[in-house]
Amino acid sequence: MDRYYMKLAIRRGEKSRGKCSPNPFVGAVIVSNGKIIAEGNTQAYGGDHAEIVALKAAGEASRGATLYVSLEPCCHYGKTPPCTDAIINAGIKRVVAGILDPNPLVAGKGIAALRAAGIEADYGFFEDEIKRQLEYYLCFMNNKRPFVIWKMALSLDGKYAASDGSSRWITNPASRRQVHRLRAEVEVVLAGIRSVSKDDAMLNVRGLRNVKQPLRVILDPLLEIDPACALVRSAKEYPAMIMYHSADRDKIQSLEALGMKLKQVSGKRDELDLAEVMQTLWDMKLYSVLLETGNRLSEAFWKAKLVDKCVIFYGNQILGGDKSALKAYDRKNIDRALQLSGITVRKLQDNAMIMGYPIW
Amino acid sequence: MDRYYMKLAIRRGEKSRGKCSPNPFVGAVIVSNGKIIAEGNTQAYGGDHAEIVALKAAGEASRGATLYVSLEPCCHYGKTPPCTDAIINAGIKRVVAGILDPNPLVAGKGIAALRAAGIEADYGFFEDEIKRQLEYYLCFMNNKRPFVIWKMALSLDGKYAASDGSSRWITNPASRRQVHRLRAEVEVVLAGIRSVSKDDAMLNVRGLRNVKQPLRVILDPLLEIDPACALVRSAKEYPAMIMYHSADRDKIQSLEALGMKLKQVSGKRDELDLAEVMQTLWDMKLYSVLLETGNRLSEAFWKAKLVDKCVIFYGNQILGGDKSALKAYDRKNIDRALQLSGITVRKLQDNAMIMGYPIW
Repeated sequence: MDRYYMKLAIRRGEKSRGKCSPNPFVGAVIVSNGKIIAEGNTQAYGGDHAEIVALKAAGEASRGATLYVSLEPCCHYGKTPPCTDAIINAGIKRVVAGILDPNPLVAGKGIAALRAAGIEADYGFFEDEIKRQLEYYLCFMNNKRPFVIWKMALSLDGKYAASDGSSRWITNPASRRQVHRLRAEVEVVLAGIRSVSKDDAMLNVRGLRNVKQPLRVILDPLLEIDPACALVRSAKEYPAMIMYHSADRDKIQSLEALGMKLKQVSGKRDELDLAEVMQTLWDMKLYSVLLETGNRLSEAFWKAKLVDKCVIFYGNQILGGDKSALKAYDRKNIDRALQLSGITVRKLQDNAMIMGYPIW
Repeated sequence: MDRYYMKLAIRRGEKSRGKCSPNPFVGAVIVSNGKIIAEGNTQAYGGDHAEIVALKAAGEASRGATLYVSLEPCCHYGKTPPCTDAIINAGIKRVVAGILDPNPLVAGKGIAALRAAGIEADYGFFEDEIKRQLEYYLCFMNNKRPFVIWKMALSLDGKYAASDGSSRWITNPASRRQVHRLRAEVEVVLAGIRSVSKDDAMLNVRGLRNVKQPLRVILDPLLEIDPACALVRSAKEYPAMIMYHSADRDKIQSLEALGMKLKQVSGKRDELDLAEVMQTLWDMKLYSVLLETGNRLSEAFWKAKLVDKCVIFYGNQILGGDKSALKAYDRKNIDRALQLSGITVRKLQDNAMIMGYPIW
C-alpha cells in the first residue's frame, strides 16, 4: 500500500505545479488505520508546505498515523518553520518520503531529525517519477542554474519559417494553447530581441484562467528594443526584464520609467554570455526558463549545452526552403548526433508535439 | 444494426490488406435472423472475392439472408465470374454495400443488377472510412495512376542525414520494422539509383513472416547500377525492375541475364519523366508505390505533385547541419505552405511516426 499512497501524494503535488515557486510542488497524504484522513499540496510561496496543509486538515487524527510525502520534509526555517517539527509535534508515527531534498539545508537532515525523534522514516519511492516531476527544482538545486526548456514550432520537414521568413502560423491553436500552458508553468519566458521585434511579441500567458504570469526576459545586447512595443507597454501589468551589455543611460532610464527591469550582463557585439544570463536568473531564485528564442539564439543555447528539455510542435504542412532548424548546431556525423531520452509524443488535433531530454 | 455489421465487414477486409492486389481488399458478412452466419475476405488474385467466400461458407443458410460488403459487388467476368450472379443464385434477400466500385466495369451496375433481380440493395455506409481503407485501389481507378506513399526518416530537427552524409541509423528498429510492414503492403517499392548505391539497399521485406514481396523499382536514368550490388544479386529471389532512358545494350542484356526486368521511359540527363514512370506502373496494374527515395528524388516527386500520402519517421536526435528535407521544394511563403490533412501520430518506442495526406 505504501506505493499506492505515494502515488496519490505525487498526484496531489501536481495541483501546485506552477503555483508555489520557488518552492517545489510537493504532495502529502496522511493515512490512519488504512484510511486516508487528509491530503495536502504546497501552497503559494510563503504559505504552508504540503505536509502542514495535510497535518492541519487531519488535526488530532494524525496521532499514530503515517505521512506520505513526495519530497523529504524540510528541517530548516525558511519562510515557514521546519515541517519536521510539525510532524513530530503532531504525533505522526511513520513517514514515507519519495526522494531526499537536494537543498543543502535539508539533504537527508529532515529524515535524520524525524528518526532522532523516534519516528520511523523511509525514503526512495518512485524516484524516477518524482525526479521528472520536480525536474525544475532539482536542476535548480543540483546544477545551480534554472531548468531550461527549449520550445520550437516546425513544419513537418523541420522548417521554422518559409524562405521569405514568414511563420504565422506554423502551428494550430491547440499547439499555441499548449505553449501558453508552458508559459504559465515556468518562472521565466525568455526570447531574443529579434523575435520580439519581428512579431511584436507579448510573451505573456493568454487564454488561461487562474494562472500566474512568468517573468518575461528579453536578451537585447545593445538595448535596441522599441519602447513603443507591446512588451514594454505591458510591463506594468506583466513583469518584464531586459538583459543587455551596452546601453545608453537615457534609454535605460526611460525603459525603467515604463516599468521594465534592466540588468547588465557580460557580452560582446550582439551576443550575451548565456551562462551569466542563467546565473543571473538563478540568483533571482527563478528555477525554470522557457526559451522562445528564434533559430539563431536557439543555436547559441544548444551550442552552450543549455537545454534540459526539448519541446517541438510540428504543424501539418511542408514548407521546403532553407529555414532549417538548428542548422548551425552541426553534429557533422550521425555518430555525433545529440540523442534525446524520455521521448513523449502527443497529437494536438492536426499538429504533433514531441518532447525529450537531451543526453549531454 | 446495419452500421454494426458493415463495421465488421470493413474490419474483415483488413485481413486481405496487401494480399490480393490488384483486387481491392474487401470484407463481407452474411446475417440471417439477427445472427452472423458467415464472413469472408478477398482471396489472393484469381481466388474468390469476399462475397463468394462468405456465400460458400453460409451455403443454404444464405437464402433470405442479408449480405454486408464493404465494396459494391462486381457484375463482370474478370479472373472470376460476377459476384452479383452468385448473390442472386444464393437467394440473398438484401445487400448492403459500403461504397460503389469506381471500376468502370462496375460503377453502380452491380447494385443495378441486384435490384433488377428483386434484391433490396443499398450503398453509402462509412464512405469516408472505406475510401481511406481502399485508398490505393480508388486512386488507381479514379486517377489512373498508382497511389504514392512518400516515406522519409528525419531527425527531430528535420535532417535526413548528418552534414557528412551519414544517416545510419536515424530511426530505431521499431520504425524500421514499420517500414518493412509498409513494404509488405504495397505493390512497388521505388528508389533512385543513388540511394541504392550509397547503402547497397535491398529494399525487400525482411523480418516479417507470411508476407508478399513488393516489386522493387529503381530509377536509374543512365543505367549506372553496379551488377554486383545486393539488389541485382537478389533479383531472382525478389522481383526487381530498372527504369532508364539511355543505356548500353550489353549492360541491359547482362542485367536481364541476372533476372532484372528493364524498362525504358522518357527522360533527359539524370532525370526520368516521373509521370511516365507512374503510367508504366499503372499499365502493369500495380496500384500502390512506396517511395524510398533520397532527398533529391523526393523533391522531384513533390514538385510533380506525385505524393498522395506522407509518412515521416522522426528519430530521437538533433543533427543540425544543412541536410534539410525537401529544401528545393520551396513554398516561399507560409501562406503557400503545402497543407496536410488526416494527420495521425504514433509513438514507436523513442521514435515518432507522423502520417498525413497532402492537399494539392
